[in-house]
Amino acid sequence: MRRTATGQDRERHTIMTVPSRGESPGTSEQRRLTHIDEAGAARMVDVSGKDVTARTARATGRVLVSSRVIELLRGEGVPKGDALATARIAGIMGAKRTPDLIPLCHPLSVSGVKLDLSVADDAVEITATVKTTDRTGVEMEALTAVSVAALTVIDMVKAVDKEAVITDVRVEEKTGGKSGDWSRA
Amino acid sequence: MRRTATGQDRERHTIMTVPSRGESPGTSEQRRLTHIDEAGAARMVDVSGKDVTARTARATGRVLVSSRVIELLRGEGVPKGDALATARIAGIMGAKRTPDLIPLCHPLSVSGVKLDLSVADDAVEITATVKTTDRTGVEMEALTAVSVAALTVIDMVKAVDKEAVITDVRVEEKTGGKSGDWSRA
Amino acid sequence: MRRTATGQDRERHTIMTVPSRGESPGTSEQRRLTHIDEAGAARMVDVSGKDVTARTARATGRVLVSSRVIELLRGEGVPKGDALATARIAGIMGAKRTPDLIPLCHPLSVSGVKLDLSVADDAVEITATVKTTDRTGVEMEALTAVSVAALTVIDMVKAVDKEAVITDVRVEEKTGGKSGDWSRA
Amino acid sequence: MRRTATGQDRERHTIMTVPSRGESPGTSEQRRLTHIDEAGAARMVDVSGKDVTARTARATGRVLVSSRVIELLRGEGVPKGDALATARIAGIMGAKRTPDLIPLCHPLSVSGVKLDLSVADDAVEITATVKTTDRTGVEMEALTAVSVAALTVIDMVKAVDKEAVITDVRVEEKTGGKSGDWSRA
Amino acid sequence: MRRTATGQDRERHTIMTVPSRGESPGTSEQRRLTHIDEAGAARMVDVSGKDVTARTARATGRVLVSSRVIELLRGEGVPKGDALATARIAGIMGAKRTPDLIPLCHPLSVSGVKLDLSVADDAVEITATVKTTDRTGVEMEALTAVSVAALTVIDMVKAVDKEAVITDVRVEEKTGGKSGDWSRA
Amino acid sequence: MRRTATGQDRERHTIMTVPSRGESPGTSEQRRLTHIDEAGAARMVDVSGKDVTARTARATGRVLVSSRVIELLRGEGVPKGDALATARIAGIMGAKRTPDLIPLCHPLSVSGVKLDLSVADDAVEITATVKTTDRTGVEMEALTAVSVAALTVIDMVKAVDKEAVITDVRVEEKTGGKSGDWSRA
Repeated sequence: MRRTATGQDRERHTIMTVPSRGESPGTSEQRRLTHIDEAGAARMVDVSGKDVTARTARATGRVLVSSRVIELLRGEGVPKGDALATARIAGIMGAKRTPDLIPLCHPLSVSGVKLDLSVADDAVEITATVKTTDRTGVEMEALTAVSVAALTVIDMVKAVDKEAVITDVRVEEKTGGKSGDWSRA
Repeated sequence: MRRTATGQDRERHTIMTVPSRGESPGTSEQRRLTHIDEAGAARMVDVSGKDVTARTARATGRVLVSSRVIELLRGEGVPKGDALATARIAGIMGAKRTPDLIPLCHPLSVSGVKLDLSVADDAVEITATVKTTDRTGVEMEALTAVSVAALTVIDMVKAVDKEAVITDVRVEEKTGGKSGDWSRA
Repeated sequence: MRRTATGQDRERHTIMTVPSRGESPGTSEQRRLTHIDEAGAARMVDVSGKDVTARTARATGRVLVSSRVIELLRGEGVPKGDALATARIAGIMGAKRTPDLIPLCHPLSVSGVKLDLSVADDAVEITATVKTTDRTGVEMEALTAVSVAALTVIDMVKAVDKEAVITDVRVEEKTGGKSGDWSRA
Repeated sequence: MRRTATGQDRERHTIMTVPSRGESPGTSEQRRLTHIDEAGAARMVDVSGKDVTARTARATGRVLVSSRVIELLRGEGVPKGDALATARIAGIMGAKRTPDLIPLCHPLSVSGVKLDLSVADDAVEITATVKTTDRTGVEMEALTAVSVAALTVIDMVKAVDKEAVITDVRVEEKTGGKSGDWSRA
Repeated sequence: MRRTATGQDRERHTIMTVPSRGESPGTSEQRRLTHIDEAGAARMVDVSGKDVTARTARATGRVLVSSRVIELLRGEGVPKGDALATARIAGIMGAKRTPDLIPLCHPLSVSGVKLDLSVADDAVEITATVKTTDRTGVEMEALTAVSVAALTVIDMVKAVDKEAVITDVRVEEKTGGKSGDWSRA
Repeated sequence: MRRTATGQDRERHTIMTVPSRGESPGTSEQRRLTHIDEAGAARMVDVSGKDVTARTARATGRVLVSSRVIELLRGEGVPKGDALATARIAGIMGAKRTPDLIPLCHPLSVSGVKLDLSVADDAVEITATVKTTDRTGVEMEALTAVSVAALTVIDMVKAVDKEAVITDVRVEEKTGGKSGDWSRA
């Protein structure tokens, strides 16, 4: 059955070949997964042709935690100490590890990373801002920074709150690159 | 409800994990973040005293995507090919990288990892099950596997859907270890 | 001959590895790839049930090089210096990186690695011997050590010989573990 | 004896100093190992002076496997599922890990990687094509991608065929850079 | 004084580590570098024969910095914020990376790491305490933790003080293992 | 108390904001830690604005060892073999791992690394020279190369001399970049 599907697709593809970056004008209806070639094989898309430009991405996420954890992270009664610093540093290091973790991500030279963690009433709110001057965007670096920081928060609090949940990890905004600036509606 | 569940757990917890930290029991109100010492300094908790036992953890998460992405991942019209396989393999490799990513996580010998990805009507649903026979649990390995698989899904679809969101990444269940079995209410 | 040997192994195998996978024995004809589950999904096989025993593996490989390279590696006229040492050390470090490189490989605690490189008349011959006391064998660690050492030899000589070829990378022998000792016919 | 050889070499060297990149015209007879300095010490050759240009490399290799493995990889009777996808992804990730594995390799920004795996009658044939726009070539990245994919194939089939062999891993073609285009005779 | 202490240690040593290497005792004068075999080749010493026991190591080191840096790290006038936390976390993560960095080091399961950084009048003083229950000691893990923390301190202050120096990085004490307890005279 | 200090500082800071690279002319008295933001949070400083220029750094360090170790490293009586080569290669690889180890270090493309190890009468003397053409300097890469080589020397000799000490690890000289050339007085 996979064989048939692949076969069909080959026909289909010859009719609508799409630039390897999937950035053809075209409508989203015509688009396919850029990381998968005509035969369905994963590939690291060739970005040699893209310009080296300044790019930024901002991603956010939240870790829902118990009220007791909120007290601890606010340092009420006991020192919060390095708790948020540990997550912040893990997130910054995570941004650098992105191409090691995400199979089809291009290695790129991150030129700046900022991680903000703030303790709200029922969650730790995380924002990562990543900058580069390279051929691809840094959305994945920003999302990875948020995710690794969030995982570190959970590791930090799991003995107190087994039920912590990571939620709403998403790109808020990007600038630079061929597709230009974008921000979430 | 989370609060109640957490409360129950807290009682159980003071009885359980304290010995492994060689700390005075004290009441849940006095309890602090185990990864932070008296002076507020981050540390990798000493687990030498804990038993080597079989442990498992199951974590889940979801990546909310557009209907167009759902079509693509179901292979409608174009081959889904390696799309989900790439995320699955990234998640398995991510589980092995956990102590590299989470600063205070103990390195441990993962003895099995299973990643399930299924395409629902508005999301890719991810479940990771991790096993070990070691001195600490594998909740962080399971959560990291889910997060890395989810990030890989986003990387795979981001040219088609810039607005994908990772949500509800959480531990569902754990077995083994001193604190025994636990599953989310 | 390969077929015969494989056939013999197959019988032995159905008796042996099945328990660790909790699968029905079945005949060799029914046997499937252990790293792929019923639905075709890659997984890291659960080895929790396997015993911690002493295990060794020996793998070999060759890098075919030009006669000029042979002269250089033998230090005729110019110092071979660190040439072979670099490959030897790369191979030892490569053995430790195996679970980082091979997606479904289990992390295990390598307890000894020996790399021998010798310069024959038309090739650099590499032998890696790896030991562990763990739940799985170290064949992949030995093969990875040989491959990384071989790649390092090519990197070392490529300015002099663009045509170097890595060949005959294979397991020669293994000891320990449930499937017991084995050596290539 | 090494001391003497080194001494001789120092004389020798003052007579025929060779650019650190060993890219002097000269005949191969005059060439020495570029990664080894006058005293025999390994070094990462300085490429600051080289131009940033588009470069590609294509490498190939084969994994010889039993006929039973060929059946399984062709999905006859059982799902081949993620088998080849796992090797393909491992190879792509391996290309990114090259400077981590090969001691004297320069880190460079890989801009595209394609891995083709095809199942022939007695072997899995692997081709890796790597692109960059940087100061050094990507031959080592292409060879590493092939080797890691080949090792992953062996890991995948080793329970069925202990005797699989990696062979003929070699550069087929390169383009770009000072030494220009080259393809194997 | 170092010589005397070393002499004493040497006697003790011939009795102790030899068995783990399966080498003839011989006198200290005959003793060779354990990581180099008879032919001079580097190897990862086989520790399969050693017992799994609880082991600890404590190492210290200092980073000499300017008085201005001391003020900054004490938070006089400007926030020291995460400065020391960053070094502490880097040191803890560095301990886990030891076998990745030191070619002949055995991978082992670190079971606890504590990093203390204190700001003296002319230096940042660093102490790392590492625990394991494994076949080899953790002296290298403790030294690596101190070194990485020290490098991070330098990175943190280098814009203010280009002349910072890392000094006196050394093992102070070890416990457990065949060679038993040891502390610096 | 921490809370008060931090509070005070926030006031203070609004009065004296300093360019994020801390490279404002100003006197060192006005400088603050560039890696820590106004609120005391660690960050990877944004270097997008910096020029891509050729940069070099030279760092040195010493490992104090016993006279017996000096004999062994000089190959008196027994082959020194790969002893220094192992440290040299570890140092070169360490330079490439710098951004993985030092949390706030920028990844950059090292274009050359040279490690010199010489055996003095009471120490192994290490010099690392690192080159790049990038947006930031390579002082940390040079210091990391020296530190990893020094740690490897200690690992190599620790069975013979438990008391080895790493000392005087420091930058000697740097060239290139906005702050221009500098060498230690």
